[in-house]
Amino acid sequence: MNETTSVPLERLRADIEQFYARHMQLLDGGRAEEWAATFTEDGTFQLPGRPAPSRGRAELAEGARRARAAQEAAGETHRHWHGMLDVEEQPDGSVSVRCYALVYLTPRGGEPRLHRACVCEDVLVRADGGWRVRTRVVTRDGH
Amino acid sequence: MNETTSVPLERLRADIEQFYARHMQLLDGGRAEEWAATFTEDGTFQLPGRPAPSRGRAELAEGARRARAAQEAAGETHRHWHGMLDVEEQPDGSVSVRCYALVYLTPRGGEPRLHRACVCEDVLVRADGGWRVRTRVVTRDGH
Amino acid sequence: MNETTSVPLERLRADIEQFYARHMQLLDGGRAEEWAATFTEDGTFQLPGRPAPSRGRAELAEGARRARAAQEAAGETHRHWHGMLDVEEQPDGSVSVRCYALVYLTPRGGEPRLHRACVCEDVLVRADGGWRVRTRVVTRDGH
Repeated sequence: MNETTSVPLERLRADIEQFYARHMQLLDGGRAEEWAATFTEDGTFQLPGRPAPSRGRAELAEGARRARAAQEAAGETHRHWHGMLDVEEQPDGSVSVRCYALVYLTPRGGEPRLHRACVCEDVLVRADGGWRVRTRVVTRDGH
Repeated sequence: MNETTSVPLERLRADIEQFYARHMQLLDGGRAEEWAATFTEDGTFQLPGRPAPSRGRAELAEGARRARAAQEAAGETHRHWHGMLDVEEQPDGSVSVRCYALVYLTPRGGEPRLHRACVCEDVLVRADGGWRVRTRVVTRDGH
Repeated sequence: MNETTSVPLERLRADIEQFYARHMQLLDGGRAEEWAATFTEDGTFQLPGRPAPSRGRAELAEGARRARAAQEAAGETHRHWHGMLDVEEQPDGSVSVRCYALVYLTPRGGEPRLHRACVCEDVLVRADGGWRVRTRVVTRDGH
């Protein structure tokens, strides 16, 4: 259930930044189900190079678990950063965000490096007393 | 026309962060004229290693177009990030910002890398219903 | 003296982000005493790989001076970035922050690189009209 309200920019940006911080720390911490629950039930996530988006929390959680298992097998720590958030409330109360997204990777015992530079376009909606990602489209720089 | 007002820190920071997000996405998206219009008409931009600052929107747009053409010729995507913003309202209503600025570069088909680490010092003013950069001085780390 | 109050998220996040910006710019600018004064008098800082935390402003300032001297001797500029701040006010009025922390390094005359990727866990308290770090624990990715 989405609620349509208009809020001051400072409130909106604070909410969204707090949302992304927890959202990405859940993902990077291997908490796949909790991360998937930050999407709407029918939320979609279009990753670069994939023929179709992941859809729904079960599929999103499965993708996160698979990625996590691959990182653990490789001995890698990944950290997702969002930055330069262009946040715009839409007439229907949803919020569109276009931001830059980086992934930093540190191999076990090694030096950190920049792994991915992307652009992330989200539509967020208010639901269940918080924010949820309804759609996400990520494009990878250089591809 | 600048308006002198005092606003709560949360409002000021939200405005400035939103401003930088759009400002840099315009630059990185090759929208040179729209980017130049986020400076005041007589805005200045002192880049490292240049004898004098760029001054005024025509000159700023020309610099942005030239940089963009060079990136396209080289097959590079550049992304500008501002972070660690120290924001301070001045008695005349202008806002000084001292922040860190990074440029990430991804070559076509290649891996992203950190291209520049800089410090950016801006004076921003309210004009035409938004914020504009009146002066910018960028210094490059290591030089 | 800490004051127990509850503040809106937008105010809290703005305060904390402004605090970190100045805090890190003091550190990176070699202003060790001023940086140490942004901890509580008995503030602690647990760095990765150290048997015990630094404790108190004199010890914190000494550590910052030593690190700075080493950087200058090596001809390096370090820049500390905090990002993806998960900010949570505690019942006692203190604020816990779990965030990602990066250090960028630029050698004199050289190219910038990512030096450290860490997770930083702070407890901040209001004191002397501002915010102070009461405890900090930093863990380094890959170790």
